[in-house]
Amino acid sequence: MATTTITSVGDTCRSAKAASRALATLDSERKDAALEGIAAALQKHVVEILEANARDRDAARDSGLSAALVDRLTLDEARIDAIVGAVRRIAELPDPVGEVTEGFRLPNGLDVRKLRVPLGVVAVVYEARPGVTIDAAALCLKSGNAVVLRGSAAAAHSGAVLASVAIDAAGRAGLPEGSIAFLSGGGHEQLAELATQTGIVDLIIPRGGEDLKTALEEVATVPVIYAAAGNCHVFVDRSADLEDARAIVVNAKLQRPGVCNAAETLLVHAGVADTFLPGMLRTLHDAGVTLHADERARAAAAGVPVVAATDEDWDREYLGLDLAVAVVDSLGQAIEHINAHGSGHSEAIVTRDTVSARAFELGVDAACVYVNASTRFTDGGEFGMGAEIGNSTQKLHARGPIGLRELCTFKYLVEGAGQIRP
Amino acid sequence: MATTTITSVGDTCRSAKAASRALATLDSERKDAALEGIAAALQKHVVEILEANARDRDAARDSGLSAALVDRLTLDEARIDAIVGAVRRIAELPDPVGEVTEGFRLPNGLDVRKLRVPLGVVAVVYEARPGVTIDAAALCLKSGNAVVLRGSAAAAHSGAVLASVAIDAAGRAGLPEGSIAFLSGGGHEQLAELATQTGIVDLIIPRGGEDLKTALEEVATVPVIYAAAGNCHVFVDRSADLEDARAIVVNAKLQRPGVCNAAETLLVHAGVADTFLPGMLRTLHDAGVTLHADERARAAAAGVPVVAATDEDWDREYLGLDLAVAVVDSLGQAIEHINAHGSGHSEAIVTRDTVSARAFELGVDAACVYVNASTRFTDGGEFGMGAEIGNSTQKLHARGPIGLRELCTFKYLVEGAGQIRP
Repeated sequence: MATTTITSVGDTCRSAKAASRALATLDSERKDAALEGIAAALQKHVVEILEANARDRDAARDSGLSAALVDRLTLDEARIDAIVGAVRRIAELPDPVGEVTEGFRLPNGLDVRKLRVPLGVVAVVYEARPGVTIDAAALCLKSGNAVVLRGSAAAAHSGAVLASVAIDAAGRAGLPEGSIAFLSGGGHEQLAELATQTGIVDLIIPRGGEDLKTALEEVATVPVIYAAAGNCHVFVDRSADLEDARAIVVNAKLQRPGVCNAAETLLVHAGVADTFLPGMLRTLHDAGVTLHADERARAAAAGVPVVAATDEDWDREYLGLDLAVAVVDSLGQAIEHINAHGSGHSEAIVTRDTVSARAFELGVDAACVYVNASTRFTDGGEFGMGAEIGNSTQKLHARGPIGLRELCTFKYLVEGAGQIRP
Repeated sequence: MATTTITSVGDTCRSAKAASRALATLDSERKDAALEGIAAALQKHVVEILEANARDRDAARDSGLSAALVDRLTLDEARIDAIVGAVRRIAELPDPVGEVTEGFRLPNGLDVRKLRVPLGVVAVVYEARPGVTIDAAALCLKSGNAVVLRGSAAAAHSGAVLASVAIDAAGRAGLPEGSIAFLSGGGHEQLAELATQTGIVDLIIPRGGEDLKTALEEVATVPVIYAAAGNCHVFVDRSADLEDARAIVVNAKLQRPGVCNAAETLLVHAGVADTFLPGMLRTLHDAGVTLHADERARAAAAGVPVVAATDEDWDREYLGLDLAVAVVDSLGQAIEHINAHGSGHSEAIVTRDTVSARAFELGVDAACVYVNASTRFTDGGEFGMGAEIGNSTQKLHARGPIGLRELCTFKYLVEGAGQIRP
């Protein structure tokens, strides 16, 4: 296995930049072979990976990390299998590099193609989940980028072993040295150094909580795409199929409450509040959800225990078993509420009315707008992109799942026969 | 004509945000009618526009502005005609909003469409050229965005009259109030206020020099796309058609030296330096170009007066009658020089060799890579996008000309029949 030598952040990034020049011109077969090499190497080193992970978990328990965080940190054979499977799925995806997205001939005969090319060097800064080490590396390599990985101290052992296995396998597959780099967590100074490698690092993607985001916002001069919070809504329209609505709300809230595409607020049209809410709230309450209801939702609760919603509840991403509930008078009011309080992630309407569906689609300003489906589908895997590297709620470059294409920029190739501008 | 009332930057931007919600759902016919209204109104108010421009020019001359800057400031009937023509061409372009760029059905039956939607509020900060007022407004409206215009003090009168004509015409055509806003130049504090309207202004596009860029970089929390400098190269390969090469170099350097897609460095393969350089340098010298040549280019100059290039010359954007000239031993050396010193704008190779052409296209990291054509074609108009709002040398979101599509983001619309995630 590769030995780790201490090098500066600047050296690591410059080495990644040099590697990125070669990676950008590599054909898909070579990249896919490297990914298969990484997958096979992970399977071969399962025991070492699990040992390293056990050390991280012991340290986490000793330092009093919450059970939820320890779970995020945990690898077992099934999870490693899932990581390996994701690498192989990424290898099977079409290569985004070289894809011509537009092409035309100008009146003067110049042939113009706009085609996808790698960004160059992508740095991924993440917390806890050690599997991100491999996900991020695989997505970056497949899209022709060199990747600089910076994990958290909590997953230091797992991350180091996973990265080492990947670096080693990539090298054996003939990828240029520096294609994958791993910085073991070195505090805010290291982060600041990474975030100011202007002209060398082309993009930073943080995967972590608000603290990480704030820390980056303060120092970054390199472009950052924030995989931001999801304050997602389900709006049950007056014309909704209430059975569908019930199933969608349960799914959006409960199928996995700790993720960014889970619902945090339920909006119900006044015309169906009395019919829909009692049963719906009972189901949610029985599933352990604390319901933060506005006055009209409380009035319709029909004895189901709820608490009074505060103004802050409309803006909260609970990431747990809490749900804000409000009754609105109209579709317009629902859209206004969502645009005022939502984080622009995933928003759903349940309706049988085509006019409502279209107005919701046009009016809601979010990455993903759902009609009669759960918000939980916002995911690179679900959207057929392979494993995603995050979800963007910003509007520039990448909005929604960040997959292979979003890890590319493009260039215009213009071919002529001596054309000059008159 | 609309009267101008003093409102705060924050109020102006919030009003633009409200307008942007309505603009985003407006159909093309309505937007195109507003653009035609603006074009007609400009023609009707030519006299007032010219009067205001005369005041700006007088003030500029009094304050000792250079002739080049006064020229940038100047409007005459021909230039106003050109502005009007650009507005009408933008109206005729296809509406980018609603364009489906991808669409697919997921295995679970969900129908996913990725479609272009307006960004929301775009602020354009510009210097000198008063015509940008109208260009920027037309491009933003056509792409469904509200626009906040901030001109420079030097063009205060022209900008105010042009904006006023446009605001008035847009209102008469039924666009929501706040769709176009004009901030008369109010110094750095105003710029800082504009650049920190997080969540309200969705994008700032500066069109100006390095001072403006630096001022924004220091304060902006809102996303910025810098219409950056162009240090463009022409590389004459060993196999080049030297007649084509001569014409392309002359065009790239001399057709309009003051713009970002003009050539600033000429690289010549050592194999043709002695054949090509004497005549080429003579032509450039006779046209008034100061030639900053490296040692080998000086040796090949055959008596044409040149000066010795310094290390700084390779990184300079002269924007005038200067050209750096170097001889390189190989295509690889040329690519390396360009990637080290270029600004990633527009780079050209002149060659008859398909292997060289392909290696240059793959290896050069720039927005636009030309084979056997002048760098001067990097332009939204030339690329068929209509008037451009700038040229981006960054890699995220927009690279190259920023036209209508680049003023959009997108969203995913996902339609189902009650799907939930298993």
